[in-house]
Amino acid sequence: MNPVELLKKNIITDESKAALIYSRVNRRYLTHFPSSDGVLLLTAKDAYLLLDFRYAEAGANKAQNCKVVEITNFGDTLTEIVKNDGVSEVYFEMEGISLAQAKRYEAVLEKAGAKAMLDKTLDTALSKQRMIKTPGEIAGIEAAQKITDDAFAHILPFIKEGVTEREVALEIEFFMKKNGADDLAFDSIVVSGVNSSLPHGVPSEKKIEVGDFITMDTGAMVNGLHSDMTRTVALGKITDEQKKVYETVLAAHMAVIEQTKPGMPGSEVDKIARDIIDRDYAGRFGHGLGHGVGYEIHEEPRFSKLDPTPCEAGMVITNEPGIYLPGKFGVRIEDMLLITSTGCRSLTHSPKELIVL
Amino acid sequence: MNPVELLKKNIITDESKAALIYSRVNRRYLTHFPSSDGVLLLTAKDAYLLLDFRYAEAGANKAQNCKVVEITNFGDTLTEIVKNDGVSEVYFEMEGISLAQAKRYEAVLEKAGAKAMLDKTLDTALSKQRMIKTPGEIAGIEAAQKITDDAFAHILPFIKEGVTEREVALEIEFFMKKNGADDLAFDSIVVSGVNSSLPHGVPSEKKIEVGDFITMDTGAMVNGLHSDMTRTVALGKITDEQKKVYETVLAAHMAVIEQTKPGMPGSEVDKIARDIIDRDYAGRFGHGLGHGVGYEIHEEPRFSKLDPTPCEAGMVITNEPGIYLPGKFGVRIEDMLLITSTGCRSLTHSPKELIVL
Repeated sequence: MNPVELLKKNIITDESKAALIYSRVNRRYLTHFPSSDGVLLLTAKDAYLLLDFRYAEAGANKAQNCKVVEITNFGDTLTEIVKNDGVSEVYFEMEGISLAQAKRYEAVLEKAGAKAMLDKTLDTALSKQRMIKTPGEIAGIEAAQKITDDAFAHILPFIKEGVTEREVALEIEFFMKKNGADDLAFDSIVVSGVNSSLPHGVPSEKKIEVGDFITMDTGAMVNGLHSDMTRTVALGKITDEQKKVYETVLAAHMAVIEQTKPGMPGSEVDKIARDIIDRDYAGRFGHGLGHGVGYEIHEEPRFSKLDPTPCEAGMVITNEPGIYLPGKFGVRIEDMLLITSTGCRSLTHSPKELIVL
Repeated sequence: MNPVELLKKNIITDESKAALIYSRVNRRYLTHFPSSDGVLLLTAKDAYLLLDFRYAEAGANKAQNCKVVEITNFGDTLTEIVKNDGVSEVYFEMEGISLAQAKRYEAVLEKAGAKAMLDKTLDTALSKQRMIKTPGEIAGIEAAQKITDDAFAHILPFIKEGVTEREVALEIEFFMKKNGADDLAFDSIVVSGVNSSLPHGVPSEKKIEVGDFITMDTGAMVNGLHSDMTRTVALGKITDEQKKVYETVLAAHMAVIEQTKPGMPGSEVDKIARDIIDRDYAGRFGHGLGHGVGYEIHEEPRFSKLDPTPCEAGMVITNEPGIYLPGKFGVRIEDMLLITSTGCRSLTHSPKELIVL
């Protein structure tokens, strides 16, 4: 069942219902067609992608799971479909639409005799089905991860004393874009030495020094699908404390891969890693263990104390334990895990034993 | 008067009124502080930038024209300020807020005894004052344009037979980012040969050939301010038809620089260029002449048939006439013009006489 059919099955329960999908990410997820503008309207009878002259030709060639309708006046076309298909209630995306846009659509629908349903039905249904990746989506995420793994191999010989964090970040970006990434999956994090104790630090002009840990959190985006990986490497030498922290994070990371399986709540997966870290580094793992990855870099579900969502085959969720010692250094090791029918497997192939360059 | 004072003067007409600024771009414009989250609340008494623990410290150091308040519970803080400052009506941004977010804020305000004003007052006031750039903003746009001019000089020797459009685009991007751009101002357009007849084509794997026109529409972003420039160059040789088209576009472009002055409506500026192009190429200039540039790459006002806004000193608007011959080639030449008290001056310093590489 394609994602449009699945969504219709879940929320278009009778002929009177329809759904208006406006956000870029959900339009792309449902139709596989990227465009900066356009609206997808699902009714019991059909799925219509409304595009203006700028996108109609490309849409007709590339959009899937829907019928492309070229519009000159958006309101007229929407009214016509609503009337023809006997629609009286239209679900809205609440997160993906601006208040101004919502008011415009609401006014058009009211004139056409249909009511805007301003509740969470559509957002919830979309989020829920996007959690379970199709084989095609998993292959897409793996293609994005392949570029990320290759970038990691490429960057290791580039990391030398005196090179700045920002230079490393740019070199990773350029490599990814030259090797097939449509874009970065997110702004790269490259932090070294004392900066590595900031989980979300921004690459700075700081030069990398001997004895530094260098944490690189990077990913590529290909065809709308994202990848996400973190590796921490050292330059020259490390202290016993650095070694112990690294090994603790790695042990937590590996325990998650070994123990995660379908049915386990996200909060319990988080606990696998947290318990190991808390033995010697209580309070030093100041973020959740992971997040879903797909058409967005951060999506549902989470491996977090607060997320009871049980693991299900087809979910892709990051496994990214970390230890951050303020004023000293930090370590994070992150893979993407695919939940399988019996456990999980990592979609990330870069080495994770400690590399001292 | 700083932009917060100006906005307050325009819309906070008495103590009962307040404004809630949520969009990233307007928060940055008003406070000069970039953050992915946060809310600015203007009351008659003060201007409060509400930030959570992730941003509060950086905000306290860097945000201007406001008081930074660290929040733990957004609703509680908002309620407290609304009550303390005697606010009963709060203007909302209609374009910059999601429907879901608006509902949440509305509910908080209702409990606090204030009404959400869901009309265009705030958006209109912001758009209007953002049209007129301060000397600091003009200097920022010029800094971004300096990188764009340097990238153009850098790319000329890189353009050779067999190099792809995408390679040119990436080389421009890498140069800009290595030379101080925080980001591209927008996805670069690099189109060659027959592709150059598409005003908004995407850089492809097409190799540049002798006889091609190569149109490059690029810009850098620095400290939130954007630049925008287009140049069209040729490789090896050109035909008489190419020469005539180039000279017509250049004549239209230069006429705009010579004739544009304060008080002239945007529609009339558009007509200066369009009349020249229409003599021999009627219907081949299929877009407006220009758009405002500032904290967004496209903002108000426009040089367009449909925009009657009169030019005013301090506006920065692109001058980008083009001729597109489908199946053959296209030419566009674009500067940013600063409207002055007596006319206008270009903020763009790259040469625009035809370059045949």
